Amino acid sequence: MKIALIGFGNVGRGFVDLLTTRREALAADDGFAPQVTAIITTRGAALDSEGVDLSRDIVFAPHPNPVDAAIAGADVIVELTPTEAQTGGAGLQHCRKALSAGKHVVTANKGPLVVAYRELAALAKANGAQFRFEGTVMGGTPAMVLGLETLAAAGVRSVRGIVNGTTNFILSQMEAGGSYADALATAQTMGYAEADPTGDVEGWDAAAKAVILANTMMGGDLRVNDVDREGITGITAEMIDEAKAEGQRWKLIAQVIRHGHGVAASVRPTRIPLTDPLALVGGGMNALTFTTEAIGEVTLMGAGAGGKATGFAILTDVLKIHRSLQTA
Amino acid sequence: MKIALIGFGNVGRGFVDLLTTRREALAADDGFAPQVTAIITTRGAALDSEGVDLSRDIVFAPHPNPVDAAIAGADVIVELTPTEAQTGGAGLQHCRKALSAGKHVVTANKGPLVVAYRELAALAKANGAQFRFEGTVMGGTPAMVLGLETLAAAGVRSVRGIVNGTTNFILSQMEAGGSYADALATAQTMGYAEADPTGDVEGWDAAAKAVILANTMMGGDLRVNDVDREGITGITAEMIDEAKAEGQRWKLIAQVIRHGHGVAASVRPTRIPLTDPLALVGGGMNALTFTTEAIGEVTLMGAGAGGKATGFAILTDVLKIHRSLQTA
Repeated sequence: MKIALIGFGNVGRGFVDLLTTRREALAADDGFAPQVTAIITTRGAALDSEGVDLSRDIVFAPHPNPVDAAIAGADVIVELTPTEAQTGGAGLQHCRKALSAGKHVVTANKGPLVVAYRELAALAKANGAQFRFEGTVMGGTPAMVLGLETLAAAGVRSVRGIVNGTTNFILSQMEAGGSYADALATAQTMGYAEADPTGDVEGWDAAAKAVILANTMMGGDLRVNDVDREGITGITAEMIDEAKAEGQRWKLIAQVIRHGHGVAASVRPTRIPLTDPLALVGGGMNALTFTTEAIGEVTLMGAGAGGKATGFAILTDVLKIHRSLQTA
Repeated sequence: MKIALIGFGNVGRGFVDLLTTRREALAADDGFAPQVTAIITTRGAALDSEGVDLSRDIVFAPHPNPVDAAIAGADVIVELTPTEAQTGGAGLQHCRKALSAGKHVVTANKGPLVVAYRELAALAKANGAQFRFEGTVMGGTPAMVLGLETLAAAGVRSVRGIVNGTTNFILSQMEAGGSYADALATAQTMGYAEADPTGDVEGWDAAAKAVILANTMMGGDLRVNDVDREGITGITAEMIDEAKAEGQRWKLIAQVIRHGHGVAASVRPTRIPLTDPLALVGGGMNALTFTTEAIGEVTLMGAGAGGKATGFAILTDVLKIHRSLQTA
């Protein structure tokens, strides 16, 4: 299997590290010996039809048309450019090109799914390609396989939870004492929040994840602007204290509910009782509670981000493609 | 597919209800139209090679050798007799017979797995049969597929959690005020605990589940007597209050840990801080935290029992067999 990476940040590095450190186990357990034939970054591209040597420093060089060359030379495209949730951005174009060419696509980029999930799923089907995206929600924690495969037959009626680690960290910090501004500054110092924190604190990231849950698991066809969205910038130290005094805690809760023939999604700061398992999800952790017809509520908790963990989600998707090709 | 049920309590009824109420959806979505050719109870057997009519009251009649007849006439044996964790009991004999005959086996009976998992897995392999047991741990909540499939590549190092709903209910009741004897009596009145509660309150049921986790997911070869086991009968109201005063809560915690080349299992009342998600698992709920190399801790919470939910676990196992036969 020849793999091309488009985008090479923490997740891409985490994935490549796993390929390198697990090379022998992957070959022994699964007969899986992939070559990375392209890595495209904003600084240049590394292309080698025999496989880039991952054991040495990778040399990136300018290339006139790296994406087309990468797609042409690979079986699986790992799309890891930054999320652009309004237009889908370059990531959407990469997914379209790859799937149209019958190449499998694995991504942790929310943009393509949020803007064009139905189109991309249809494109994959029409071209005999697979389109996988475990890493888009809850990082490496297997939320997508749980909802899309394991719980599918149980009839998922609603999904509700904490899907943004940055805001969860800020709210946890505020509960420990301090203003929103102080907590945000700490989150920025620790690398949890970006210099411009809008995408997290205004709930855009959580809304994108809610759209992915709605459209992939529950038959929805929402866009980010369809989400009833409110961020955490209006939460004050007084509100935190008031909730605490009543045995409650503020969390930024994303929710997707089936209603009639449609699906509705919201992201909103919510006071939840300390008896709700979601109240104990602290720091950068994530959690989702699936309400099903057949087996009631099932809650999954785990790390919501991290290059190594999300890189592992990419590896599991790539391995699923490998295994399906083996048995085909 | 012809299915034989051996044992027909709450789980068997839950499974048959699902087959009946979902008949059309199973046929439409999966091309799955099974016949139940045998149902064996302690009161007699119902056998019909054309399929027992599940829409009417089932008539059970004496039969000289119902198990052999049921196995001979079916493709999949659903083994649901009561757990016997020391010898495997009749359930172990049924599994051996069925797998030796090349018939697939689905079970929620812990006995056969606890006593002879390796033997049965080898027997299944040698005879080209599948052996599935999602319903044995956490009822309908998909703990086995999470540990055995979804998280396998992440490297499960330890598993820890609450796997017995009866003792969890009793401890929750004691925390609300009252002695162990009062709480047990309430649990018995509500049908959570049996007249002889030993299997639950002395930790035998949790120990059997720990053995299943150890042997199926972590390469162990333990028996129930290998588990370092302590029940909840020694927990007093004073101990509950003392823990509460220190921000802690008693839970019966089952734990399985890899060490060196082996695996160790324990079941023990444990004081856990209220900041641990396991502390919020109340009533009859169950939860397991998997500690993995690649993605850290992943916690799954859900109902730990119930005929409908565990019947659903049986259905998912049967459907997996159906799907694998379709693609074979």
